[in-house]
Amino acid sequence: MTFSIHVEVRLRPGIADPQGATIERALPTLGFDGVSGVSVGKSIRFEVEGTDEASVRAQVDDLCDRFLTNPVIEEAVVTIEQLEQATS
Amino acid sequence: MTFSIHVEVRLRPGIADPQGATIERALPTLGFDGVSGVSVGKSIRFEVEGTDEASVRAQVDDLCDRFLTNPVIEEAVVTIEQLEQATS
Repeated sequence: MTFSIHVEVRLRPGIADPQGATIERALPTLGFDGVSGVSVGKSIRFEVEGTDEASVRAQVDDLCDRFLTNPVIEEAVVTIEQLEQATS
Repeated sequence: MTFSIHVEVRLRPGIADPQGATIERALPTLGFDGVSGVSVGKSIRFEVEGTDEASVRAQVDDLCDRFLTNPVIEEAVVTIEQLEQATS
């Protein structure tokens, strides 16, 4: 089975986000007011072959911890969706 | 009213994604097989003050086109959620 994975990598609360702060500071000069709390993270999408959702989730969580994020300063939100199969 | 905004910035189909390709190439050496189609984008979250969802959406779409994305190579998916108000 094929699963579609979306990983959103965010900075943990309290970690400085200079990219978000820069966007927030620039917006009023461009005419956008009332924007606050800007935070910038990464959005990673991919597909995984696996037998069931639980094993795929374990694999993706491991992948996030070891490779896609720096767990000291970042946290990952994983969304798993099973793709439809024509032959099921 | 306050709205919580999530903008996912993705490369348009057909645009080279070297960051995603590098992740995909590295995964088998780390023991993760069966992963394909890796794409990396940005995930931007912020809050906006506005009167109604339609005007906020127009403002955020404009913001995406002019500032948060390069519309030639990137596309944005905007998700808007109204935050609860204690005084409503």
